[in-house]
Amino acid sequence: MKALALIAHGSRRQKSNEEVFVLAEKLKGICAQQYHIVEGGFLEIATPSISDAIETCIQQGATDITVLPYFLNSGTHVIKDIPNEVTQAQQLFPNVSIKVAPHIGASDLMMPLLITAANSVNGQE
Amino acid sequence: MKALALIAHGSRRQKSNEEVFVLAEKLKGICAQQYHIVEGGFLEIATPSISDAIETCIQQGATDITVLPYFLNSGTHVIKDIPNEVTQAQQLFPNVSIKVAPHIGASDLMMPLLITAANSVNGQE
Repeated sequence: MKALALIAHGSRRQKSNEEVFVLAEKLKGICAQQYHIVEGGFLEIATPSISDAIETCIQQGATDITVLPYFLNSGTHVIKDIPNEVTQAQQLFPNVSIKVAPHIGASDLMMPLLITAANSVNGQE
Repeated sequence: MKALALIAHGSRRQKSNEEVFVLAEKLKGICAQQYHIVEGGFLEIATPSISDAIETCIQQGATDITVLPYFLNSGTHVIKDIPNEVTQAQQLFPNVSIKVAPHIGASDLMMPLLITAANSVNGQE
């Protein structure tokens, strides 16, 4: 059973964290056939943590988890911290496949997204 | 003459800031007919600042500037800090139109981007 864990940085501002849960819920609705489970989580500051989000997926029956870093830049969090957390979770749950997707800033779709967002304020969307 | 200012948070890690310049350069290549000028800038920590980026656009002849916040969450930076900076710049340059686009986390294209990024690690892209 496939699961998707959307992992954001985590903010002291609860409303920012809630936006991540809203995104996860939307993903759940859209990807239900592909990812049976979708959970949101945070690298730091907010909860659930990455390991909690992964564990919640597993408790729901996930056997194949994709961790998707909701980060724009390839900083230490993306290069080191998230992979480290995933490696630890993988050791705890050796029978579950846990992969880390590229952070969203690396997506080929970022360019059209930027252009559409810029144009939307100029009434050209 | 239209300009686009891509504004990121700014990082202590210079490589993260350089990614913003790379994105701005890519945008310049793709949007050359629509935005004659594309500049990258930062809210804090890194340079150029928002006001510097706006001024650079104006020095190159921009009369219509779109500020695009490269931010995922609608936190204080997006709601308050960037609009404040733009208001100040607008007062300095009353003959130039300066608009703020929605932050990229609010884009309708974020959902397909997330799905594509997640699928890319599963070989389903």
